[in-house]
Amino acid sequence: MTDQRAWQVVLARIEADLADGTLSPGDHLAPERALAAELGVGRSSVREAVRVLEVLGLVRTQTGSGPSSGAILVTAPSDGMSVLMRLQVAAQGFPVADVVRTRLLLETAVVAELADAADPELTDAIDLLRAMDEESLTAQDFLALDAQFHLALASAAGNRVVITTMAGLRTAIEGYVRTGAEQLSDWSPVAARLRAEHHAIVTAVRKRDAESARRRIRQHITGYYAETFPTS
Amino acid sequence: MTDQRAWQVVLARIEADLADGTLSPGDHLAPERALAAELGVGRSSVREAVRVLEVLGLVRTQTGSGPSSGAILVTAPSDGMSVLMRLQVAAQGFPVADVVRTRLLLETAVVAELADAADPELTDAIDLLRAMDEESLTAQDFLALDAQFHLALASAAGNRVVITTMAGLRTAIEGYVRTGAEQLSDWSPVAARLRAEHHAIVTAVRKRDAESARRRIRQHITGYYAETFPTS
Repeated sequence: MTDQRAWQVVLARIEADLADGTLSPGDHLAPERALAAELGVGRSSVREAVRVLEVLGLVRTQTGSGPSSGAILVTAPSDGMSVLMRLQVAAQGFPVADVVRTRLLLETAVVAELADAADPELTDAIDLLRAMDEESLTAQDFLALDAQFHLALASAAGNRVVITTMAGLRTAIEGYVRTGAEQLSDWSPVAARLRAEHHAIVTAVRKRDAESARRRIRQHITGYYAETFPTS
Repeated sequence: MTDQRAWQVVLARIEADLADGTLSPGDHLAPERALAAELGVGRSSVREAVRVLEVLGLVRTQTGSGPSSGAILVTAPSDGMSVLMRLQVAAQGFPVADVVRTRLLLETAVVAELADAADPELTDAIDLLRAMDEESLTAQDFLALDAQFHLALASAAGNRVVITTMAGLRTAIEGYVRTGAEQLSDWSPVAARLRAEHHAIVTAVRKRDAESARRRIRQHITGYYAETFPTS
């Protein structure tokens, strides 16, 4: 058994224990020594597997309580996919057109669900609208808030798979949006239009007009993409 | 600097090098010794970071060519997100309703795109239809092919973000689908209906009837969910 296989064995075991309920969120993993002996692998392989789980956001380690009992399965993992997708996008890049098409799918559904909801929690989104109204923002600062705004809408709609996917795509989205902004000869009128579009999306949601909300976010996303990636 | 911070420093550096083009797919990572010295971290931290990248499918290591020069950035990473999402879903489970709603979003778009395409590559999907026509299949075997069929449709449509997300959700989907099958008193009529629905979806795609394809896959997914998770 190569070293590579060894750490994969550890991950597969933890995955299986999670799947059948032997392990649950909040539980301590078995001590490094015990896992290593049980699976017939080296302790360094166990340690590597735990590091991977930590990067994925599935485990936190408490360094204060001894090396062999410090790995706890987190109750609400959430950042793992973002870490992964950020790395994956950085390594290869999903085609921008695929990112944009996926945004359209997910985000039109998000605003339609918000518009159909009785009392959606829009506080975060509205706070971000106000922050983006500040005229002195640089393009970079504006676009960071813009990304947060879109993620806040997804969070308000509440589908956890969609939230996680959008969070994972965030770096990919910021990447093409920033690259696009650098192509523009004059940022200011674009910022003004994006501001107006954001407000109109939220207004449509608050009026519970799902079709208008869908149409407006579609135009918002495709308009910027067409303007900044004209050859695509 | 704790050991944990050290491996995070390594990952952040690699991510930054990828993002700015210093590193590209196909490149070797800097040797472990050089990276460790440059970043002021231990070699074990570099090794752990490389393991993480390997699990994420971003790096492959060649054990034959020496420990310090063996990590190569892969050209087309693809499996990382599945690994992560499988673990994440196993650790916590996305709510089944959120998984189903996300499937509906993605898969209705997939079949509509296939129906609109001039000459979609449906060979894999059709081979899977034929395999599922075998009457002697157990429920478990049928459902494994069923999951492959849905993934084959996504692959044929070609949006890489959607393919990756669907691949990542595969275990989550198989999980609720299998759990659902166990609730059924009689699998056979359900299998017959699922077969007919699969054929009808592909027929609608081949007739280039996007609306019918959308409606049929929606009914296919929601019908099974409603039947097997009646209280949801």
